Amino acid sequence: MSGQKRTVFYLSDRTGITAETLGHSLLTQFDNITWETVNAPFLDSVEKAGAVREQIDRAAEHDGCRPLIFSTLLKPEILDVIKQANCRVFDFFETFIHSVEEELHQPFAGMAGRSHSLQHHMAYFKRIAAINYVLAHDDGIDPRHFKEAEIILVGVSRSGKTPACLYLGLQYGIAAANYPFTPDDMHVQQLPEVLQMVRSKLFGLTLSAAQLHVIRSERHPGSQYASLAQCALEIEWQESIFHRYHIPFQDTTRISIEEISTIILNRCGLKRRLYG
Amino acid sequence: MSGQKRTVFYLSDRTGITAETLGHSLLTQFDNITWETVNAPFLDSVEKAGAVREQIDRAAEHDGCRPLIFSTLLKPEILDVIKQANCRVFDFFETFIHSVEEELHQPFAGMAGRSHSLQHHMAYFKRIAAINYVLAHDDGIDPRHFKEAEIILVGVSRSGKTPACLYLGLQYGIAAANYPFTPDDMHVQQLPEVLQMVRSKLFGLTLSAAQLHVIRSERHPGSQYASLAQCALEIEWQESIFHRYHIPFQDTTRISIEEISTIILNRCGLKRRLYG
Repeated sequence: MSGQKRTVFYLSDRTGITAETLGHSLLTQFDNITWETVNAPFLDSVEKAGAVREQIDRAAEHDGCRPLIFSTLLKPEILDVIKQANCRVFDFFETFIHSVEEELHQPFAGMAGRSHSLQHHMAYFKRIAAINYVLAHDDGIDPRHFKEAEIILVGVSRSGKTPACLYLGLQYGIAAANYPFTPDDMHVQQLPEVLQMVRSKLFGLTLSAAQLHVIRSERHPGSQYASLAQCALEIEWQESIFHRYHIPFQDTTRISIEEISTIILNRCGLKRRLYG
Repeated sequence: MSGQKRTVFYLSDRTGITAETLGHSLLTQFDNITWETVNAPFLDSVEKAGAVREQIDRAAEHDGCRPLIFSTLLKPEILDVIKQANCRVFDFFETFIHSVEEELHQPFAGMAGRSHSLQHHMAYFKRIAAINYVLAHDDGIDPRHFKEAEIILVGVSRSGKTPACLYLGLQYGIAAANYPFTPDDMHVQQLPEVLQMVRSKLFGLTLSAAQLHVIRSERHPGSQYASLAQCALEIEWQESIFHRYHIPFQDTTRISIEEISTIILNRCGLKRRLYG
């Protein structure tokens, strides 16, 4: 069965983020399958469901095997239409909701899309404030306000500070600043002065010199800046600083933005605010 | 049972994002419960599981009822330790993986954390490139390069363009630019010249004047800029422009960043790249 092509549909009353997150986590456990992905968010009427049913049947015919359907649809009448198609349905909501009802001794509210909808004005403002903080303190901008940061990521150029800060701000509402070490900082074996006052908030990002070389070469091929020797020098300097000043740090060579962010939250004891 | 306090644990071999997404989407369906949330990511040894088991038992005693556990743990020996605690386990992975195996006629790979890990260098580079594009073209910066954008969000100041662009870049790898309408643009009933060449890429964000007034007052209370009259004037101007130039637009008054982003992708036919 190696090399098969299959189609997967993510169905939801609202954004479809939950359906896709769950389905993806299952499907990544299977190799040698090429996935064609169809997203059907905002599937909130029987008419729209009829159109998706036809799309599923066409995919089944085209692939020569039935599509997988991951659904967080709340309304049974919409899912009933889908079930008439030639497909295999994995229904996250139906599978769990009744056990949760039983455990909590109350019926579920039956309102669609609560998970990724705007529920609290204050949570929204906090999230926007965190994003604004991250943008205003990216790349060492305005270090006078570093004392207002919840966390300050430090590392050499292209060590992944900006994406991690944005993720922390956007997903978790964390006021994250970052400061790039530059060759100018490396003339002495000392933490730059502007960081000394906020040492307890620092978290270092490091990676292999080889990986840094690949990343820098992507934008500046052949430059001194991107050379393996320069990358090795900068990494060696920063890791000696992390050790000397007892700054917690993480090697990010083989990990994603999501993983880096989770590790930082976890190691620094920051409260996750994934949902408000 | 109104007003009860319960504790929920999210357990995972890796980031815990999938476990939290699932649990949150179920628990938001139940009102009148105050949730104490405990995240236990990177739970990859029997020793760590033992510590979490004790934490669960303490929470059960403190709350006077057993905690809910949402798990994406892959290793049965770790989950077995947790199950010895006084708790109710909802195990996402175990519940679905065998049905998916059956449907795909192959065993699952059994590797933890594939879903939010770094799997493809090229996907990582694309994502980073999208983030860099968003940062370089926020708030009308460098409109000469707007033709390279996949989408350009337009709207008055504080209509939510920046958070939506960042979300599109960070989560979906979309090169999203944005351009703020200013009172200077509003002297004529015309689309600003710099946008005329890229009309097919425009998407408008609007909201109620009352909501805009609240948002602007948060940072600039009592200003002319934040006044309800000024907000109403600007919203009226932009909506007339959206109609006149047939620019698709969305009222964002009551919706979240996730919903806005999904609606934009959906209406503009942009390919979602939630996972690479």
